Parts: sequence; structure tokens; C-alpha cells
Amino acid sequence: MAHRAGGRALCLLRGRLRLPGPARLGSSGAAVQRAPQAAGAEEAGEDAGISARKKTFTEVQTERLEQAEQTVLIKCPPKINEKKLLQYLSSHGNIKSHFFFENHGIHALVEFSEKNSIASLQDAIGIPSTAEHYVVPFKSRLFTFKLKNPVSQAAEETPVHLSPQSHIPVNELIQKLCCADSISTQMYILLNEYQLTEENIKLRFLACSLVRDFARAFFPDSTVKPFGSSVNTFGKLGCDVDMFLDFHDIQKHATMMKKGPFEMEYQMKRLPSERLATQKILSVIGDCLDNFGPGCSSVQKILHARCPLVKFSHQPTGFQCDLSVSNSIAIRSSELLYIYGCLDSRVRALVFSVRCWARVHGLTNSVPGTWITNFSLTMMVMFFLQKRSPPIIPTLNQLKELAGEKDKHVIGGYDCSFVSDLSKIKPTKNTETLDVLLGDFFEYFGNFDFRKNSINLRKGKEVNKPESSPLYIWNPFEQDLNISKNVNQPQLEKFVAMARESAWILQKEDKTQRKINKEPWGLAAILIPFGKSNPSKMKNRMKGIGSETIRSLLDSLKLNTANTVQKAAGK
Amino acid sequence: MAHRAGGRALCLLRGRLRLPGPARLGSSGAAVQRAPQAAGAEEAGEDAGISARKKTFTEVQTERLEQAEQTVLIKCPPKINEKKLLQYLSSHGNIKSHFFFENHGIHALVEFSEKNSIASLQDAIGIPSTAEHYVVPFKSRLFTFKLKNPVSQAAEETPVHLSPQSHIPVNELIQKLCCADSISTQMYILLNEYQLTEENIKLRFLACSLVRDFARAFFPDSTVKPFGSSVNTFGKLGCDVDMFLDFHDIQKHATMMKKGPFEMEYQMKRLPSERLATQKILSVIGDCLDNFGPGCSSVQKILHARCPLVKFSHQPTGFQCDLSVSNSIAIRSSELLYIYGCLDSRVRALVFSVRCWARVHGLTNSVPGTWITNFSLTMMVMFFLQKRSPPIIPTLNQLKELAGEKDKHVIGGYDCSFVSDLSKIKPTKNTETLDVLLGDFFEYFGNFDFRKNSINLRKGKEVNKPESSPLYIWNPFEQDLNISKNVNQPQLEKFVAMARESAWILQKEDKTQRKINKEPWGLAAILIPFGKSNPSKMKNRMKGIGSETIRSLLDSLKLNTANTVQKAAGK
Repeated sequence: MAHRAGGRALCLLRGRLRLPGPARLGSSGAAVQRAPQAAGAEEAGEDAGISARKKTFTEVQTERLEQAEQTVLIKCPPKINEKKLLQYLSSHGNIKSHFFFENHGIHALVEFSEKNSIASLQDAIGIPSTAEHYVVPFKSRLFTFKLKNPVSQAAEETPVHLSPQSHIPVNELIQKLCCADSISTQMYILLNEYQLTEENIKLRFLACSLVRDFARAFFPDSTVKPFGSSVNTFGKLGCDVDMFLDFHDIQKHATMMKKGPFEMEYQMKRLPSERLATQKILSVIGDCLDNFGPGCSSVQKILHARCPLVKFSHQPTGFQCDLSVSNSIAIRSSELLYIYGCLDSRVRALVFSVRCWARVHGLTNSVPGTWITNFSLTMMVMFFLQKRSPPIIPTLNQLKELAGEKDKHVIGGYDCSFVSDLSKIKPTKNTETLDVLLGDFFEYFGNFDFRKNSINLRKGKEVNKPESSPLYIWNPFEQDLNISKNVNQPQLEKFVAMARESAWILQKEDKTQRKINKEPWGLAAILIPFGKSNPSKMKNRMKGIGSETIRSLLDSLKLNTANTVQKAAGK
Repeated sequence: MAHRAGGRALCLLRGRLRLPGPARLGSSGAAVQRAPQAAGAEEAGEDAGISARKKTFTEVQTERLEQAEQTVLIKCPPKINEKKLLQYLSSHGNIKSHFFFENHGIHALVEFSEKNSIASLQDAIGIPSTAEHYVVPFKSRLFTFKLKNPVSQAAEETPVHLSPQSHIPVNELIQKLCCADSISTQMYILLNEYQLTEENIKLRFLACSLVRDFARAFFPDSTVKPFGSSVNTFGKLGCDVDMFLDFHDIQKHATMMKKGPFEMEYQMKRLPSERLATQKILSVIGDCLDNFGPGCSSVQKILHARCPLVKFSHQPTGFQCDLSVSNSIAIRSSELLYIYGCLDSRVRALVFSVRCWARVHGLTNSVPGTWITNFSLTMMVMFFLQKRSPPIIPTLNQLKELAGEKDKHVIGGYDCSFVSDLSKIKPTKNTETLDVLLGDFFEYFGNFDFRKNSINLRKGKEVNKPESSPLYIWNPFEQDLNISKNVNQPQLEKFVAMARESAWILQKEDKTQRKINKEPWGLAAILIPFGKSNPSKMKNRMKGIGSETIRSLLDSLKLNTANTVQKAAGK
């Protein structure tokens, strides 16, 4: 994906202030102006007057899916007259919103107020006719806008505003952080630069909706919904779109209409297991995407995995997508994180900062391995916030106690119930600043007794490890599973060492002096690989860590040129 | 496929007399009562008052396709109350026609008067819910009708009438033929037993319509149409359904809506060749049928053939189907045969008799090889009928001269134009009986100079062979091709020998004497493998035929037990 221009000033940031209570506000207003995902509930709503906090996860999802159905994506020529394009489209219906973005050329996402505008537009659109090419005549909601006389028309165009769809490289981020006046402000700047934008979320739901068109060809009542980072408020610009195919409504229908002396049933292909049905359906939809889907490429069927899925690259939106079939527990996890992310703005600011930090220091990685996952790291932050005094977020058991009748969910024998109505959860009385929380997070896990204790978010307290994995974090729903089983001892030790080093930097370093010397300070200081500024200093602080870990750390530092850091963090 | 009960009397045959002019009528009226396919144009029409001969091939096709869209197929319990089923279905709309047939259980084909009745019915139908099975929730027009209390309800049922969907075995046919009083009557009895019934044609169009539902999922303007024997009036009960996917309407749309200073196009997968597009589309639709299609089995993709196709067995209708993508010349061939078949009832009677004869004697086969194909054999009959004095059917050049502006078709550089309006073709003045025509057919080809001459239906006369293939029949449209290139010298010699033998039997044998002796006579006599009644007689008549041919003939006769003949003829 193309990166946006690097030199964009902070003052260009658009959006609204949407942070609850002065305790969480950085003193620099500009840095915290945009927090669209936490405010997603309101942005997605028809009735913007209702407080953002009132809408449940499901309500937001439903609204966004409906909006996506009314949306088209148009590839535009390099110079485009925005007014003329909108004028043309308006002849098919009222346009509710639109934006432009760069992705191998300029694209426009256009959302209509009504779904039948799409049909009207589609009727007026031609099939590309070329002498050299043959097309698969599948009619999607992806169009190409062409000028008939590009030269004469291009002259009158003015450049359109392009919404960024990727975050800035870490070196540019560090420069921005250095201009801030507190660590809190730095953390909100980071959040603001990395979190999904309103536009990017629309694009993600559109990608799901376009895949739904394939599924719906055969299964008219099915839907395709995003889950995980696209919707849990913790997604970073550029992260994959996890989506699942949901047959929920179809299953319900099965019990209907069975009165009278006889009954009529559909003849349907019968299979001995649900897994086999899932595999067959994913396989065919994968083939459809591969052969008919404009811009769907690198389609990979991974049908024999525990959770069968189809991976593909969706070029029109620029996303890497993973399509699976309804995984109820994964959806509950997304909603749980959504609730935590919406409860208090410090939650997301701390998670984004910790994850960026972990990535810079090689503690996480985009490929599977013995690294700590982003999910585990997020759970560690949640646990830390549950442990504050007073707690910043409630335990999962407390959320379960608040659950109403409609919130009851038992999946595969596990009780996955918790409250969905955010207004039922009492706001925290904790007023600690993010400056304090960031330092304390590193101190807390730098001193955590990982040999003895495990992390349990359901109870919000350390409990004895049930088995000997180096890092044990209880799966919040499938409670006999450890979500960080993959992490080995050297990786855990590296994490502890980095946490200690970071706690030390945040506590000891003189902000004023570093600002005068134009050196990175605060959050910026811990987002630079430690070996780089002063490797000798680091060695002194590594006492008590195994010599093997030190050796591997030093090796990794040698490789950490500014270039590779930027690449890794930009992913 | 299950065979209907063998002992059905002639008087049970239903239908109407639809034969033009007394010259073609057998003296036994019963034997010629039903000729539905030649009369298909009328049966398919809303306006039964208009003469059958007035409707063109395209009109009949269009009407039948529309009817098929309004049709459902219902699997019924062994004992079914017809009245109650119809009562239930009537609550969703007016039923235009229905019939029952046996195919691994009793099935009902039900045609509604309006398409929206289907949607109403589908809304009321449940998804099978079983503990042991998982289903692929694809909703088709194939249903299962179930009694909730089979024992108590079954008592009140009376058996329903079952429409036969396969022809009688050849030994039963021979018995029936022996009771007739002329060879003409015998030939009409054979036609009547073997030709497609109105019900079977409805079932064939339904099979196409069900496949169309898969194609339409992605390509809403596409259609699936039968071609070849299902529609050319020469199809035999039990023959395969050849169908093709037609994108015609989509291509047309490409040229629309290109006004204004810009244009909007669909983004579509582009491919370097039409063949590759065809292969991809067929491949995906094949997978859909295989994985989602209830009762679709043995799906075989033959994508690298000259004409890529998908073969599959469609269990609900009992058909073996071949799906390809629009093959314009094959459709022109179907229409040409349709015209010849409709022009004069003797045409189809002679073709069916000759094809049954060829099959009994091993001159044709259901697998590809050096055998004469049914298509080649049909063309030989057509040529023979063009050569009568006066001719019974016009030459292709004459049909081309009658073509109107709308009938112009140039496909791949070949002029495939001919008249589509049957009323423009003058009826023949030829009044020869089928008795004469059958004998003369065998005599004509028994003495044809295959070494020197080729068969040209366009000109309606023998022309010098352009190359040395043993049998040369000009492709009526692709005129540089020989449709019988596959036939080798021994097969041709076998054909000639059998033709001579048959001509001899028809001329010499004493009908009255054989009837008294209860021996097969006339058409029946030539439908029995010749070796069986008196092999020594046969040998005497084989003079002038190569010794190799005689040896292979004698070998084949040894194998020709009554059993294998029956099996081969029943295919």
C-alpha cells in the first residue's frame, strides 16, 4: 500500500474531540482531536445526537454493514473533477458520504442514502469492451470512471483531498512525539496516527460486503462480517481484515412452517460433519473470488487448519483478507475488547503505545512463531488496568454479573456471557495520567513473577500457573486454554528485559535536558531500539538476564538499522 | 433409470393425432396417436389454437424456458394423495400442469402459472434438520414432501399415474411391432415408444433451468438452454441433456450508456482469451454443482477439450447432462434438424427406425470410436429424403434461399443462414409410404459408391469426395469438415452389409407366412441380430464383402445374446 506524504503537519488532522473527562486529555488539544474508532458508534449512527457510548457492538456492526451495502468503490483517473463525479452519481440517488484515497491510483468510496441507488447506477454502467481482453462478466460494485478526452478535461481539475489509509513510518512518528509536551500527549498522538480512521473502517466493511455478494449468490440470507482488529477498537491502519461468513439466519428458518398433516423440505446436499460443509462452502467461495472477483488475487485456501479459512488480497481496497465461517468465540472476544476500548480512552492509548513499543523491539512479529501476539499483549494491558487502584476497567466476571437475559451466550459449553450495554458499566474513579500508567506498566511486568503466576482477566488477579508454559494468560472464554502457549522462555525474558529498560528510561531520563539537546524523550525514547543511542548504557542494565538472551539481543541490535526498524513498524 | 412396467397395452397411449395428411398415416390409428415432440410448438404454447407448424424453433425454446422457470420438482412418499398435494401447492398459486414419474421414488413436476408462486412456496419450506447430517443451505426448486404420520395417511391413498421417462426394451418393442399391420405402422409405433414425451421435455428444460439458477447467481442475465437431441425432435427417451450457458444478453449491454464527457465501466477480471474465460466460468459452475447442487453427482470437468464442458449426473431428473458455453453452430444444427423433423412426420419415423436398427446391429455405440454417430446417421436419412422424387425435404441451399433478413447468421466466417419460419417452406408432393422408404433407404446405401462419392446436404446430391476418408458427409455449416471422419473402412463395410441384408429381408420375406408362424416380420425382422435366426442364410448373402469384415461380423454375432442386445438398445 502506498504511504501518504510524510510531512503532514499536526494541524492538518481533522475530526472531533471525543474523549471523556479531562483526566485523559493531553494538554495539547490538537494531538487528541481525532479518535474515530472509539466514537465509531456515533459516526456509524443515523442519529448522531445520541451519545456514542450508548450503542452496543452489535448495533454498530449492523449499521456499518447496512451502510456498506449502499456503498460503491470507483477507480478514478489521475486528475479528477470531484464536483462532476458527484454530480453524475447524484443522478442515481442522494450521496450520504464520500472520500478519496490513493491505492495504485485514486479511488473514491461513495455511500448512497438508499440501496436502490446502486441498482440504478449499475444499470447505467458498461462492460469493458477491448479487443485484446476477454472479461468475466461478474457485475460487482467496483467501477472505473473514465474521461473520454483526458487531456482537455484534466486542465480544469484541482487535486482532491486523499484520506490516508496507512500510518506514518515510525521515524516520522518519533519526530512528532518529540514536539509534544507530555507523555500522555505523545500517547494520544501515537493513537491518532495508528488507529483505524472512519474512512478506513468504511473501506473494511465494504470489503466484507463485496465478499458477501459472492456468498449471497448461493445463500441469500448469509452475511459476511468483520471481526477482530477491524472492529474491536484496537486495529492499526494496515492490519488484515478478518471476516467470517454467517449462516445464522438460515439456521433459524429451519424450524419454521411445520404445521399441517405433512411438511415440505428443501432437498439439500447432506454431509457427515459441519466441518466438511464449512470446507466445501469456503472452497467454492474461494474459487469464485479467484475466478470472478475483480481485484481478488493470491487466493489461498487453508481448509485443513483447525479453523478453515481462505486468504486473499483484495486490491481495490488494498486489504489482505482472511475469510472463515462463523466463529462465535472469536466474535465474543471482539466484543469484549470493543467494550474495554470504549470504556476509557486511556485503554486504547496504552495498548497502542505498548504494541508499537513491542514491535520496535522485535517482541512481536507479523509471522507466527514464539513471539508474543498482539492479542496476548493487549490482554496483558487489560489485566494491568484491572489491577490499578481503583481499577480502570472491570474484570470479565464483573461484566458477566452485569449481563442481562439477552447477553447470555454459552458456546461449546463455555459461558461467554457479559454485558453488552455500555451504560450499565459504572465509569472508573481512577484519574491516573497515561504518563504514570505507561511507566507503571513496564515496572509491573518487569517485576511480574512469571515463573509462579498466570494472568487471569476473568478474575482480574494473578493465579498460580496451571502448567509450566513460560507465559500463561488464561483464554477469557475457553478457560482451559493458554492464549500465550506459543511464547518460549527466551522471548519472555526479552520482554521482561525491555520492560525494565523502558521503565528505567521513563523514570530516570531528564525530559527538559533531552528536549534542549533535541534528543528523543518520553515515549519517543523507548520507541528507538535501545542499542542505537548508547549500547554500553544498556549492557549495564542487563544484569540478571541470561547470557544467551543478551547475545541474541546484541545480535539483533547490530541488524537494527533505521531502515529495518521503519519497515517492521510500518507493517 | 427405472424402466416402466413392460406390459402396458397400446390402448393406454394417450395424446393426440398430429400427423399431416393421410399418406403418412398408418392404418392402425392407435399406433400413431402420440407425436408430441413434432407437435412441441403447440404443446408449449399458451395459444393452443394456433397451428403447431407456425411457431419457430426460437419461439418454442423461449416458451419452454419460461415454463421451466415456473416449475418445481417434488420428491414424494411411496403413497401419495395427489389431491392433497395439489391442494397444498395451490395455496401458493395456480397450477398450470403437473405429472408424476418414478425415479428412485415417486416425483412430481409441478408447473405454476406465475413465477412468483415459486417464491411464495419457497418461503414456506423448511431446511432439513437432522442430528446426523449437516446440509449445504442452498435453496433450489427441489423439494421433498413428507407425511408426518405415514402409516395412518397412507391407507387413504390411490396410486397416481406415472409418466414413463424411459423407452421399453427392444424385445418388448419387437413383440408390439409384430401385432401391427404394415411397416409404416410399425415405424410409427417405434417412434411413439422411443421419442421424447411432452413430460420428458418439460423435465429436460427444468434441468437446464436448475443449472441456470447457479449461473444466474453470478451472471444475472445469463441463460442455460438445451440443444441437440433434447430439442431437435430426434431425441430418444433416456438420451443425455446437452445444455449451454448463454451470455448473449450480457455482451449486448456492453455498448449501452456511453454518453456524456465521461463513462463508467465495471471492474472485471480480464483474461487473454475467450477460451480461458469459458474454462474459468465452467470450472466454478462445475464446483458449485458438485458442492451445493442437491442430487448433482459425478461432476467431471473436461475443460481442455476443443469445446470445454462439464459432465454431471442430475439425479432428481435422472439425466446425464453436458454443460458447455454457447456454441452457435451446434444451435444452428439443432434448429436445422428441428425444421426437417417438423416438415413431414415420415422424417422422424424413418430416422428413429434406422437409428434403432443401427444400434441393434452394433453400428452405433454410446462411447466415441470408429462407429457411425447418430448425427451422421440422421444426416444420411436426410440426404436420402432430399434425393427422393419428388423430394420429401428441401436441400439446405433451398432453405437458405428462403431465409429472411432476421434469419441471417454468419458464424466464424460460415454462412449458417436458413429460413426459420416453417410456413414459408412448401409441403412436399411426395406421397410414398414409409414401407417403401425404409426398404429403399437400405437399398440406396447398400449400393452407394462410398469410394467415390460424398454426401452433401447443402446441395442435396452426391459430390466427389474431397479426401479419402471411408465415409464423407459434409458438415452442413463448417463446410470444410467431414462429420464422419471418425468412421473407418471396416465399420463402413459393416454398415453396407447390414443395409444390404436388411433390404433383402424387407423385399423377400413373406409377411403373411411369418405372421402365421408368429415370426418377427417387417421392421421387427430387421431389429433382430441377423446371426440369431439363421446364420447360414446370412453367410450366403455376404458375397463381395472382405473376409476380415466377415470374421469380425461373425465374432460379434457370437456375443449377441438377447440380453446384451436389450441392454445396448435400452441405453
